[in-house]
Amino acid sequence: MAKTLTEKILSMKTGLEVKPGDIVVSPVDWALVQDTTGPLTVREFLSLGLPKLANPTHTILFIDHAAPSPQKQLSCDHTFLRKFAKDYGAVLSDVGEGVCHQIMAEKYARPGDVIVGADSHTVTAGGLGAFATGMGSSDVAAAFGLGKTWFRVPETYFIRLTGKLQRHVTAKDVILHLIGMIGADGATYKSLEFGGPGAAAMPVTDRLTIANMAVEAGAKVGLFPSDDATLEYLTQQGRSQDHIRLFADEDAVYERVIDIDLAALEPTVARPHTVDNTAAVGELKGIKVDQVFIGTCTNGRLEDLKLAADILRGKRRNPATRLLVAPASPRVMLAGMRMGYIQDLVQAGATILPPGCAGCLGVHQGVLGDGETCLSTANRNFLGRMGNPEGLIYLASTPTAAASAVTGVITDPREV
Amino acid sequence: MAKTLTEKILSMKTGLEVKPGDIVVSPVDWALVQDTTGPLTVREFLSLGLPKLANPTHTILFIDHAAPSPQKQLSCDHTFLRKFAKDYGAVLSDVGEGVCHQIMAEKYARPGDVIVGADSHTVTAGGLGAFATGMGSSDVAAAFGLGKTWFRVPETYFIRLTGKLQRHVTAKDVILHLIGMIGADGATYKSLEFGGPGAAAMPVTDRLTIANMAVEAGAKVGLFPSDDATLEYLTQQGRSQDHIRLFADEDAVYERVIDIDLAALEPTVARPHTVDNTAAVGELKGIKVDQVFIGTCTNGRLEDLKLAADILRGKRRNPATRLLVAPASPRVMLAGMRMGYIQDLVQAGATILPPGCAGCLGVHQGVLGDGETCLSTANRNFLGRMGNPEGLIYLASTPTAAASAVTGVITDPREV
Repeated sequence: MAKTLTEKILSMKTGLEVKPGDIVVSPVDWALVQDTTGPLTVREFLSLGLPKLANPTHTILFIDHAAPSPQKQLSCDHTFLRKFAKDYGAVLSDVGEGVCHQIMAEKYARPGDVIVGADSHTVTAGGLGAFATGMGSSDVAAAFGLGKTWFRVPETYFIRLTGKLQRHVTAKDVILHLIGMIGADGATYKSLEFGGPGAAAMPVTDRLTIANMAVEAGAKVGLFPSDDATLEYLTQQGRSQDHIRLFADEDAVYERVIDIDLAALEPTVARPHTVDNTAAVGELKGIKVDQVFIGTCTNGRLEDLKLAADILRGKRRNPATRLLVAPASPRVMLAGMRMGYIQDLVQAGATILPPGCAGCLGVHQGVLGDGETCLSTANRNFLGRMGNPEGLIYLASTPTAAASAVTGVITDPREV
Repeated sequence: MAKTLTEKILSMKTGLEVKPGDIVVSPVDWALVQDTTGPLTVREFLSLGLPKLANPTHTILFIDHAAPSPQKQLSCDHTFLRKFAKDYGAVLSDVGEGVCHQIMAEKYARPGDVIVGADSHTVTAGGLGAFATGMGSSDVAAAFGLGKTWFRVPETYFIRLTGKLQRHVTAKDVILHLIGMIGADGATYKSLEFGGPGAAAMPVTDRLTIANMAVEAGAKVGLFPSDDATLEYLTQQGRSQDHIRLFADEDAVYERVIDIDLAALEPTVARPHTVDNTAAVGELKGIKVDQVFIGTCTNGRLEDLKLAADILRGKRRNPATRLLVAPASPRVMLAGMRMGYIQDLVQAGATILPPGCAGCLGVHQGVLGDGETCLSTANRNFLGRMGNPEGLIYLASTPTAAASAVTGVITDPREV
């Protein structure tokens, strides 16, 4: 039977011929938590009374969301996670060691893996062809103990990408455009699978950005095939041995097919307070920006540092606009210094934040003041997301963010 | 009449022949606040009903203590300071632009200046031969409006430094040793003036470290002469024109003279919870350290990055010990990257924090967990200082901090 990527992976894992709607129990390759969901997950796991983790070296505890800690309660949560990791032999990724989803991509996730995480953006690893999804803490706790979990096999939407992006239009604009088109609940529990020549031509770093935000349309997963680009990325990370080729069957059955001509896309911005409240950047030009934030699991990679540096090099941020940049991992930070991007950004007035989630979730490193506007490369602009319900968050690509930092207002990067 | 440095500066400024105990009104060259004291100072200033600042371009508002902001209330304080700076033409040093005392040294403070700041470590500029002191917000507000303030001319203790520091013993050990010797109230309202061949041989960066902590013995100011080393530092900052030579008279009268033989000093550590609770590092060897923090107005300079990198290069921090490093200014950050120190530190597992006060005052970026121990290069280890009264803070030099990060326990840097 012809299969989508999702059906293929879940069939491989379960040894069954799965189809949409089936309830299956699948082995889990990696189970992860971070420091806001981890303590709850760990307490749930401990309450199960199991003597050990099913697969400790594939159980990963990330301290990235509030790292270094801004509050003693969170510091104690960190201590709790460290002790659990030590006692149970789990993997710990501590303060400053990077954003969980970036580290999963760099070090752990493999094409064809099933990955569950107590964080909705676990879907990011779909950019590498992994069936990766966020779950509640209790479900992840069960996966910690059992090494498996249950799924309802999702129906699949196929997103066919054709054409070539214009200069200064990026993968972030693609996913913002798609979410704007189908809505924040436009793909609830679906598998979003990306293909076509436009997807084939995309580097994995772009695929990670798109997969990352699949959940913002409600999708269970956002999946790309595993191809030569995947091999190239894994090879760069020193993990060529983790590569397998993985494609949907040509005659796979999709519930819906959506065509996107990349050449027709504009730089796109999501206005407050929902991700699907999108507009072409031209409609928003001139809105004053108090803070620009470049980073997160969506856009905190080396390619983002390059895009930002290419716009900001030799320029200076607007004095009324703070510019915060958080590389998503130490590897990104080191490469960014090796390439001179970090230096260019500091020269241009950027404040470099440590590898981690930084201000994305509003607990530190860039909480907005009342009435302030932030243009962010993150994936969520919900009311209060950056720590203040009186703040306004616009989401955009890295070039749009960098260009707006220069001018101090929302700016089309093609015009800087 | 022969004069101490303090008497000389206050006489120059007031046009009087001042002596200890005199009450004088002096012009103020620079008045500064930071983001925790600034809002109060500004409100006090506004309550005076004055139409303008006495000297707006010499009135500086620093946003460094909680930057980028970890709480919306603090974000709104920042907004308030920005608006005041704009409305009144004051100088604003915003998020990520560095620790106030470091920026004063780099850009503003001149030998012979009188500087008042709503921050106790304003004394740091004494390393450049400026009469610089911390005052309450109300007093600084008056200086904002009047361009002058009153002082009781302090008596002076002369600290005569002789000999040469051993390798891995630093200016930080000198000042910790002195405070341990005379106590946290050992120089209350005195001028601490440093001289002798050991002081003459010290670069300004070391003098800034020593002057910075003069207040930890209760001193009104901590002063060094302005000599060739001062000229060299100012020249490096592009400010050679700001240099004047300034020495105490040979026959100046001191209330007390304290001799310190630098060659005899050991790496020194202040134990919880007071700065004068000092011990030689050897007495504390082996105490487990959960977090090492290198930075602040005391030890966040390029020389500190070099000292840390020289110990950590090619090594790796102990996995149970977090290593946080905050360059004190963008200039330090850029020079640290140019010299490769930042790269070495990241390779060794350091988390680089943005230029600012970082975790020093306990509002973000490294708040301790219950029962955790931090070895810090900052200047205060008071109960709760790093955000948790259940945490323990030891103060030490940068080499001691770096060496302890490698081993995970308090370590004599001469043994790494």
